[in-house]
Amino acid sequence: MLAFKATTSFPPLLLAAPDTIQQHQTRLLPAAMPEYKLIYFNARGRAELVRWIFAYGDIPYTDERFEMEDWPEKKPSVPGGRVPVLLVDDKPLLQSLAIARYAARQASLIPEDSLEAARCDALVDTTAEIMGEVYSNVFKLDKEKMAEVFKDDLTPKLITPFLTSLEADLEDQEWFASGQVTWADLAIGLVVGGLKQFDADLLSQYPGVEALVSRVMALPNIKEWNDKQPELNF
Amino acid sequence: MLAFKATTSFPPLLLAAPDTIQQHQTRLLPAAMPEYKLIYFNARGRAELVRWIFAYGDIPYTDERFEMEDWPEKKPSVPGGRVPVLLVDDKPLLQSLAIARYAARQASLIPEDSLEAARCDALVDTTAEIMGEVYSNVFKLDKEKMAEVFKDDLTPKLITPFLTSLEADLEDQEWFASGQVTWADLAIGLVVGGLKQFDADLLSQYPGVEALVSRVMALPNIKEWNDKQPELNF
Repeated sequence: MLAFKATTSFPPLLLAAPDTIQQHQTRLLPAAMPEYKLIYFNARGRAELVRWIFAYGDIPYTDERFEMEDWPEKKPSVPGGRVPVLLVDDKPLLQSLAIARYAARQASLIPEDSLEAARCDALVDTTAEIMGEVYSNVFKLDKEKMAEVFKDDLTPKLITPFLTSLEADLEDQEWFASGQVTWADLAIGLVVGGLKQFDADLLSQYPGVEALVSRVMALPNIKEWNDKQPELNF
Repeated sequence: MLAFKATTSFPPLLLAAPDTIQQHQTRLLPAAMPEYKLIYFNARGRAELVRWIFAYGDIPYTDERFEMEDWPEKKPSVPGGRVPVLLVDDKPLLQSLAIARYAARQASLIPEDSLEAARCDALVDTTAEIMGEVYSNVFKLDKEKMAEVFKDDLTPKLITPFLTSLEADLEDQEWFASGQVTWADLAIGLVVGGLKQFDADLLSQYPGVEALVSRVMALPNIKEWNDKQPELNF
């Protein structure tokens, strides 16, 4: 099992144990931040968006990972019995998108306007849907067959309609919603960017989306996080 | 195609055309509410939670429905090309849960506290996941085979873990989160309540959940909405 603290640019005080934080709290510090522990396979999968959000927001957390083959043994000790799970002061929060939205709220990655926030939700839901469909195929097909299914089935059915609407929505905006980086931009960078492994030219007809993906990848905290990531199968 | 205004207890002024509303707006009225149109099949499916939330909140909207067999003809005229879609002053918002969460925000069905809101999100995601799995089976199996799959596969894999954790979380609370009705309670009432059609005794070992479902069904606006619903296949 791997367990390591994510490196952050937070002042050391906030990385100390919670009782130490409380003892030393002053008006200069935000309200005591909960202790976060994210538990997932040693994979990107359904946890990586949460990790990107924590990285973007410089939010300290324990990134606890285990190998796939250890899951049956590990499962009984995991609160809620499913992963990803985020422990917030030891209380389990389940469901990858609920965790990501909560983290995004802490990282100021959600628009204040409720309709703009909803547009981000919809976009993240669609990226998750695409990711789910892609991986359900990746896990059962060999590389050649997967390339075929990606091109002939997934692209026309799911990916083209999504990229087309995204390109239209973006127009010449720098970010997708509210003129600010949101968790929807991070989800696009992660999921749409990741799809290029199945078709290197995927974004050639979507210059706005391609530029958005590059912009997300170039965010300093995201770049730093990705640069230090180990090689992972998914 | 069916299209009708949901009946509401809103003052007639708010059901008038938007320009009329603006002309007559006074400090007694909330800020001008957008015009809402929900487009979906003539079915409960992935739109019913949104309809329950609008009913609960007395929020006026056009509930536009069409028959399944008309979808290929209808699709090109539907903004976004997918359903459900909520038009907010003619702008499309996609994804059933993004729509439901947005509606829930308008209906004050989301806790202020971000962790409590996230717990509701997680719960709604799990109900949606269960609904998706159940319906993917219902559509391909006959009644007898479905009862078998429900009992031998879906119940141990998905439903029992969910009901067990829900029962534990509820303890002796009246509502799931924050001591108030939330959209998570409505989702449980709708989805978990609906599962009883596959197993009438499903909730017998979960008295807290069973009481919650009954409490949701007895909310006056929810009861009124359900009482006037037509018979639908799903």
